Amino acid sequence: MNPIIFFGVFLHFVIFCHASGADIALDAKATLLHRIDSLNLLIYTCLLTLTVLTIWVFKHRRVSWLHETGLAVIYGLIVGAIIRYAGSTNQITHIDVHPAPDTKYNLSVPPDVLRFHFPDKLQVSSSGDIPVPNKTYAYSFRGEIVNIEQNEIDLKATFDPEIFFNIILPPIIFHAGYCLKRKYFFRNLGAILTFAMVGTALSALVIGSLMYGCVQLMPASLAASFTFLDTLYFGALISPTDPLTVLAIFSQLKVDVNLYAMIFGESVLNDAVALVLSGAIQNYEKRYSNDGGFEITAFLGAIGDFIGIFSLSLLVGAFMGCLTALISFLIARDKIFTHVREWPLLESALFVLMSYAAFLIAEVCELTGVVAVLFCGICQAHYTYNNLSSDSRNRTKQLFELLNFLAENFIFTYIGVSMFTFPKHHFDPWFIIAGFITSTLGRAVNIYPLSFLLNLGRKPPIPMNFQHMLFFSGLRGAMSFALAIRNTVSEARQAMLTTTSLIVIATVVLQGGAASHALAYLRIPTGQSQNDENEALPYRDVRSPSDIGFGLRNMDSTQPSSCDRATEGRGSGDGSGGEKARLAKLWGAVDSRLLKPLLTHARPPLTETLPAFMRPVARVLTTTHQYTQGDNTLRRTDSDSDLCIDEPQPVPTSIDPQLSINVRNGYGHV
Amino acid sequence: MNPIIFFGVFLHFVIFCHASGADIALDAKATLLHRIDSLNLLIYTCLLTLTVLTIWVFKHRRVSWLHETGLAVIYGLIVGAIIRYAGSTNQITHIDVHPAPDTKYNLSVPPDVLRFHFPDKLQVSSSGDIPVPNKTYAYSFRGEIVNIEQNEIDLKATFDPEIFFNIILPPIIFHAGYCLKRKYFFRNLGAILTFAMVGTALSALVIGSLMYGCVQLMPASLAASFTFLDTLYFGALISPTDPLTVLAIFSQLKVDVNLYAMIFGESVLNDAVALVLSGAIQNYEKRYSNDGGFEITAFLGAIGDFIGIFSLSLLVGAFMGCLTALISFLIARDKIFTHVREWPLLESALFVLMSYAAFLIAEVCELTGVVAVLFCGICQAHYTYNNLSSDSRNRTKQLFELLNFLAENFIFTYIGVSMFTFPKHHFDPWFIIAGFITSTLGRAVNIYPLSFLLNLGRKPPIPMNFQHMLFFSGLRGAMSFALAIRNTVSEARQAMLTTTSLIVIATVVLQGGAASHALAYLRIPTGQSQNDENEALPYRDVRSPSDIGFGLRNMDSTQPSSCDRATEGRGSGDGSGGEKARLAKLWGAVDSRLLKPLLTHARPPLTETLPAFMRPVARVLTTTHQYTQGDNTLRRTDSDSDLCIDEPQPVPTSIDPQLSINVRNGYGHV
Repeated sequence: MNPIIFFGVFLHFVIFCHASGADIALDAKATLLHRIDSLNLLIYTCLLTLTVLTIWVFKHRRVSWLHETGLAVIYGLIVGAIIRYAGSTNQITHIDVHPAPDTKYNLSVPPDVLRFHFPDKLQVSSSGDIPVPNKTYAYSFRGEIVNIEQNEIDLKATFDPEIFFNIILPPIIFHAGYCLKRKYFFRNLGAILTFAMVGTALSALVIGSLMYGCVQLMPASLAASFTFLDTLYFGALISPTDPLTVLAIFSQLKVDVNLYAMIFGESVLNDAVALVLSGAIQNYEKRYSNDGGFEITAFLGAIGDFIGIFSLSLLVGAFMGCLTALISFLIARDKIFTHVREWPLLESALFVLMSYAAFLIAEVCELTGVVAVLFCGICQAHYTYNNLSSDSRNRTKQLFELLNFLAENFIFTYIGVSMFTFPKHHFDPWFIIAGFITSTLGRAVNIYPLSFLLNLGRKPPIPMNFQHMLFFSGLRGAMSFALAIRNTVSEARQAMLTTTSLIVIATVVLQGGAASHALAYLRIPTGQSQNDENEALPYRDVRSPSDIGFGLRNMDSTQPSSCDRATEGRGSGDGSGGEKARLAKLWGAVDSRLLKPLLTHARPPLTETLPAFMRPVARVLTTTHQYTQGDNTLRRTDSDSDLCIDEPQPVPTSIDPQLSINVRNGYGHV
Repeated sequence: MNPIIFFGVFLHFVIFCHASGADIALDAKATLLHRIDSLNLLIYTCLLTLTVLTIWVFKHRRVSWLHETGLAVIYGLIVGAIIRYAGSTNQITHIDVHPAPDTKYNLSVPPDVLRFHFPDKLQVSSSGDIPVPNKTYAYSFRGEIVNIEQNEIDLKATFDPEIFFNIILPPIIFHAGYCLKRKYFFRNLGAILTFAMVGTALSALVIGSLMYGCVQLMPASLAASFTFLDTLYFGALISPTDPLTVLAIFSQLKVDVNLYAMIFGESVLNDAVALVLSGAIQNYEKRYSNDGGFEITAFLGAIGDFIGIFSLSLLVGAFMGCLTALISFLIARDKIFTHVREWPLLESALFVLMSYAAFLIAEVCELTGVVAVLFCGICQAHYTYNNLSSDSRNRTKQLFELLNFLAENFIFTYIGVSMFTFPKHHFDPWFIIAGFITSTLGRAVNIYPLSFLLNLGRKPPIPMNFQHMLFFSGLRGAMSFALAIRNTVSEARQAMLTTTSLIVIATVVLQGGAASHALAYLRIPTGQSQNDENEALPYRDVRSPSDIGFGLRNMDSTQPSSCDRATEGRGSGDGSGGEKARLAKLWGAVDSRLLKPLLTHARPPLTETLPAFMRPVARVLTTTHQYTQGDNTLRRTDSDSDLCIDEPQPVPTSIDPQLSINVRNGYGHV
């Protein structure tokens, strides 16, 4: 039926048959390991190819009841089952070793490398004399074996979970930040922050408590293996939602922009929140697990951890984003004055390198790289994007779009395959059922009470059908899975992984498939006008590629008044009253008067926005280009000054559209 | 001076100081390892950023005596030295272990995993009683330790060499194939194949023999550690040349197109040849090293290996390329008939996945993935590219351009850094001097005698100054280094690595820097007319980005007569007489009559090109679009039918340029 799958499985057989030959030399073994690695990659490559081809066919036949991510999961499940049950077992050989008698190693941690003196033929008699070693091999540290009976590490199509965090997740998260539709995001900032920060923590707490209760009702052997911290960790990892499937459908159906912004913004931020939250829980566990009881100082310490790590990571990301903006600003200025040809390749390379550096710096400093890369992406879109040449804009946009597409589909394929091939699953029906129920309840606790509270302050309240849709959009995805697979050392953690995998698969396939019906059932307005679509659909969607890059394209929008057009959304961000609105206003002022003129070529120049005593500094930092922009002081020629929360807007009169285009894009052409 | 370097080094200190704290728990150790990984990546990211910024500054100041790759190497050397001498040592702890007394393991190969029973505190008394283990740790196989004194594996900025072959090399090689300027390549095919196939083998043999002679003259301890196969292997790995630096300068100076094509084509192919050749030598070594003496059957077997692996890899790559073309053809046909919007993201993803699958399939089948990916790239450019939408063309082109840029600069940075940080260097002054001399001689033996032979048959002979330039362009690069670092198990191999690194660094920095002066000294025509430039400069060059994609853009050339314009180059490919020309003609016919109509939308359709008895088959395989192309039977509307070797060309009359554009690009627009 699927020739590629069978081809892959056929190769799998060929290799393992070959491997079972009697006389395997060491070189052949190394080659074999390399081939198995290649084969694993090939299986995933073929699965992704198959997914892409099926999407094409589905699109051709206008199938809407199954989305690409659901497809990827299902293909993964099928191939995983084939590998598991059809393939021959290729267990890793292992041996028990002890230190040599004359060892003088006395650190309290295990050594990094074992030097194994391996005799050609072991002739260990019962008298215990050790044979003369013929060869010495190096072995490197992998981890602790808790349950000796269960340590059957398998070579079948499994990857190091660290790969997720260092290779797969960063481009996905960066892309989310880079494509964030900032206007509607900031307009709904209050709701988004409430759902993402308060809601995720609340959901984690509720799920953790309920699960702990459920576990206590279960058989004693199970109950004993879970501590409250374990179930709380489970609550934290199952709380973040995945935007992918639902938003692709939203894009396609042109759903209400505010609903879109809320769901997208929440799911982007709650990934970051959950990651930091679970890290804080683990730190708490590490530090205070000896004492047993609950300590208020330790608890406050964990909260401090959470806030500190989140805000420091945010700063690292924002700093790297602004640094990139500054460098690209200098490059762009250079282009104006020297009239030399541009180098989009250099710009793009710099962009990619600096963004990845943000991730790495945060990781090196024991912060959260994912949070850093998210805010780096937001800053890159807000500042750097304006300085790039149009070629670089396209290039970076398309590059991250492609990386994001491949990484996402890979992750969902892997979730499917690993369901069968990952060796550390632990199926516990009670825990799984409890997980499904509590995660649904957790989502409900996140949405309904908080919406009620938000509606007390919001001018246009969140209508009930929007709340239902927000509840329904609580698919679980990549982040939950990645957190669950990170640590599978104990049985409790393995049960969590299994439950998480099942929840992800079920929600992505079933809820994702039913999303368009849910929209229709809840009578949520779809098919918004073309004019609004232009503002509304930032997220990439393979089904309608002409929408791709709207999130970025609208930055080039030459209509500063678009901010005012959708008046029904205005002021909806001040969920918690006037305080937040004032904060947002302050930030908007800093952004448009200091950061924008400093980091981009936006008008007005610093010399006009800074107070008088700062003028000398401002003059140094302002380009001649900014001076010579003509005298019609547009406050809003820069298109993505989207921070229009209750800020009194100067009505933009006498704008020459051609001029305003030149202001932003024109330095290459002057 | 360089804040980023110092920042990296500062972090390095912070971490290692932290590591030397007395009470490191196991978790902290895992965290530390992760942070060191991140730090290593960060160092390279910062180095690449620095290189990009310096290129920008150099371009600004019009510096021409140092190229970007030379720059990357030099920065790498500086940072490597700082890490080596300024950083505190963070040696890996190790311990000697023996199998447990009750072990029943009796395979002849070492086990994959050791289970190390680690006591909290070792209290091994002289009586040899083994303490009760408290914890068990898993250790995985790393490799054999040959010289126990030398096995100090270091954590400092070194990567697994396999990463080069699986991650870094494929995009570089694919990009080379994808950007191959096929017209001039095929016109100079005879010379290119002679230099790449015969020349590389000859060079390897000469270098191997001379080195063996040199080694015999050296001190006995050194002589004993090298076999003839070792020096032959050295010959094979030092023979391939790197196009990068010289070609970037060529692009900039608009050097003669035939010289450009020869150097580029040779260096692309000889990478593949050297890789397969070194593999054949290793296979020979593995199989027949026991017998000692030279066996003619074994030698023939090695040659058979070489030919078989090379051609099978070529077939795998070409097959995958054609398969992609076929699928994209179907997608493109779909676009014509359904008038639905295109999905460039799907196309691009498919393109990337299929190309990487070519690499993986070859690796899984124990062929050479790099060769497969090279020919896959050539096929993708020849067939698939014509079927892609313009968005996908840009996207794939820019993606591989960026990947290639990052990968290349990473490799040269790594060569610099590893000079100091890679633990398995072995400095042997005699071997190094001999290596420099013989590699120069090997290049001379490759170029001058073969040019003499080629000139006997070539119509416009290769002039003497071109030969000198070919000789001078023999920089060594990524492939030599990757082959050398792949196996550093013995002292001989370590000496080879050191020598190779030094040769690469010296040639890239010195020869690369002097290339423009050499061009001037040899009076090689530069600054060719704009019209010719359009044909001549396929390779990307960061210094002149408007040239980017000429290799691809010329596929869109609407002037089929351009093939005839540069008449001085015509017929120069038939180096070995009429036989090869006939072969090339045959291939050209198959390509334009069967493959092109089958895999792309090129005219004429199969129904016209196939013999009468194949008509029913042809009718099925031909699209309506191809039928309805109008009746002016252009044989050459497809622009990249570059196989114009002595083929009688129909003079293209009555071409409506607008029509011919539509033929190729138009299916999305009709």
